Amino acid sequence: MNATITRPTLLIDEAKCRRNIREMAEKARRHGLVLRPHVKTHQSLEIGRWFREAGVDKITVSSVSMAEYFAPEWDDITIAFPVNIREMEAINALAGRITLNLLVENEESVTFLQDHLTSAVNVYLKIDVGYHRTGIDPEAAGTIDHLAGAISRSAHMHFAGLLGHAGHTYQCRSAACIKEKHAASLQIMAALKARLQSRYPGLLISLGDTPSCSVADEFSGADEIRPGNFVFYDLTQQKIGSCDYSQIAVAMACPIVSRHPSRSEVVVYGGGVHFSKDRLEGEPEGTIFGRVVAATENGWGDPLPGTYVKSLSQEHGIVAVPPEAIDHYRIGDYLLVLPVHSCMAADLLRSYTTLEGKVINR
Amino acid sequence: MNATITRPTLLIDEAKCRRNIREMAEKARRHGLVLRPHVKTHQSLEIGRWFREAGVDKITVSSVSMAEYFAPEWDDITIAFPVNIREMEAINALAGRITLNLLVENEESVTFLQDHLTSAVNVYLKIDVGYHRTGIDPEAAGTIDHLAGAISRSAHMHFAGLLGHAGHTYQCRSAACIKEKHAASLQIMAALKARLQSRYPGLLISLGDTPSCSVADEFSGADEIRPGNFVFYDLTQQKIGSCDYSQIAVAMACPIVSRHPSRSEVVVYGGGVHFSKDRLEGEPEGTIFGRVVAATENGWGDPLPGTYVKSLSQEHGIVAVPPEAIDHYRIGDYLLVLPVHSCMAADLLRSYTTLEGKVINR
Repeated sequence: MNATITRPTLLIDEAKCRRNIREMAEKARRHGLVLRPHVKTHQSLEIGRWFREAGVDKITVSSVSMAEYFAPEWDDITIAFPVNIREMEAINALAGRITLNLLVENEESVTFLQDHLTSAVNVYLKIDVGYHRTGIDPEAAGTIDHLAGAISRSAHMHFAGLLGHAGHTYQCRSAACIKEKHAASLQIMAALKARLQSRYPGLLISLGDTPSCSVADEFSGADEIRPGNFVFYDLTQQKIGSCDYSQIAVAMACPIVSRHPSRSEVVVYGGGVHFSKDRLEGEPEGTIFGRVVAATENGWGDPLPGTYVKSLSQEHGIVAVPPEAIDHYRIGDYLLVLPVHSCMAADLLRSYTTLEGKVINR
Repeated sequence: MNATITRPTLLIDEAKCRRNIREMAEKARRHGLVLRPHVKTHQSLEIGRWFREAGVDKITVSSVSMAEYFAPEWDDITIAFPVNIREMEAINALAGRITLNLLVENEESVTFLQDHLTSAVNVYLKIDVGYHRTGIDPEAAGTIDHLAGAISRSAHMHFAGLLGHAGHTYQCRSAACIKEKHAASLQIMAALKARLQSRYPGLLISLGDTPSCSVADEFSGADEIRPGNFVFYDLTQQKIGSCDYSQIAVAMACPIVSRHPSRSEVVVYGGGVHFSKDRLEGEPEGTIFGRVVAATENGWGDPLPGTYVKSLSQEHGIVAVPPEAIDHYRIGDYLLVLPVHSCMAADLLRSYTTLEGKVINR
């Protein structure tokens, strides 16, 4: 594989990735949950098949385009994004082809769907379980009842359930914090379901960010989980407490193009167009954009102390290395960098290379 | 055009963009400089042709892949990135086809090029004019002389000149600051050239980041400038002092999918996979990821007060709006957002839509 790395290359440790998938699928089964993984992290039909092999038959996406990409192989897709009514034509095309699950959280969208849908869809009310990005305030009983009623009276909409995303778990730095927010989400959903279930029997509860799904051991009342990032994990998830470094299944190989012993830095080909500009703040070293690991016979090891991406420009990554180690880094070698946010790196690279040298294009 | 915007769409005001190009070309001519624009910002053959129409016949790129993309239409290309010797095969292919200008800053690369080049290239020594990202310390006379000698003795390398990038002007917030750093760069280059020119007559001096090229009025000693971002400008350049808002030639159209009057926010379809995660810190509102402008008959106006992207996730943008304005924003409309960093937005979107509705694919 070594010689094939000429440019920044996103390496995937297939064994680690498949283990992440298998463990989440087993956890879902143990808790009687449907695992509907969010595929926005990998965005790959081929990696999707690894989920299929683990028994998964439903997925979550974050855009209509992503649903279009996956529709040839997946016939039950949730677009976990407030419905974008400007894409009505594409939504109707998908709804005519697969089981399509949409999210709504306002009357305008419900009315628009009522007036424009040409095929059946399942509709979830997006509930704000505390992240405060999108979703209906769970206290807004009037809004919830009104929208649920409008949906259930509509010809093409089936009121399928309540969906939440506890994205505020990303502020956590401990398992206890994650579990607390997750428990609060479950409680919010349970209370809403208790109020609605006589009118809408069979209502489903969908939850499940990667931190909660990785760490929690209590899912009572939930029917499905939708974690995404766990397929690869990354430095952000490690910091939150969702995973160990050893579970991170992708690393960017970046050619070394410049050495600066006087400031104990090397410069790699690998910048914002490869990693995005996601950062981890408040690390012992300050703000970082990635951590360097050493290649091993079977992949890579844990981060090397004091060896991290300290800044990124469009194509350059500036890597700090310990002064005593600078001589190990040579022009024309490549570094392996664990990304801060694997979803963004995968979105930018658009292909993966396995440790065996196989290229997986999106 | 309105109806064609279904997903995040990068709009380009062609008139503004052509004016930015024309003004920079005229400035270069006035100062007797070659304008060798950095095309990493737009990465588009078609927009490249707008430069050609303004009299430009040489370009700068930031990667071998970008050189490969532009080589069908441009026969003189500088790869303004320390040579990545892992791409030797592609470099040789390009060198056999066009006038290729490379950057070196260390002995390993020079030796490798000596041993592996199969066609003639021009080579610039990359000088660190104060940014401290890459480049040779201008005080390191021994290194400079040694590399210059090795290059000039090599069969396939022509020692073309000295190249610098004053990227530290991006820390400026005033014209005076930019001019001071630019003047220091000129002085560094003049001193080096004075020392080298008897041995290497015809040595060229290449400088020119967007802030310096936009603001400075003194370029004595420089032979060419390589600004890139000025083709579009962005909020970062406005903050630095390189441009006015009215010169920013791109805006992202983002459908509104969610409204939250209680916190005076709307949510748009438009996130990190469209804008990247570049941010402006220390704004009156704190950290921001974009500013909203209002559509006008001929494009868009200046930013609307208090209306900005306050956070981004993969596909969502959270937009703060003044409480008194929240009712103007409706589900299914779209917002126009000036990006913090136009290079990254353009890299992610991979196409532009003119105000007349013409799509420019990369």
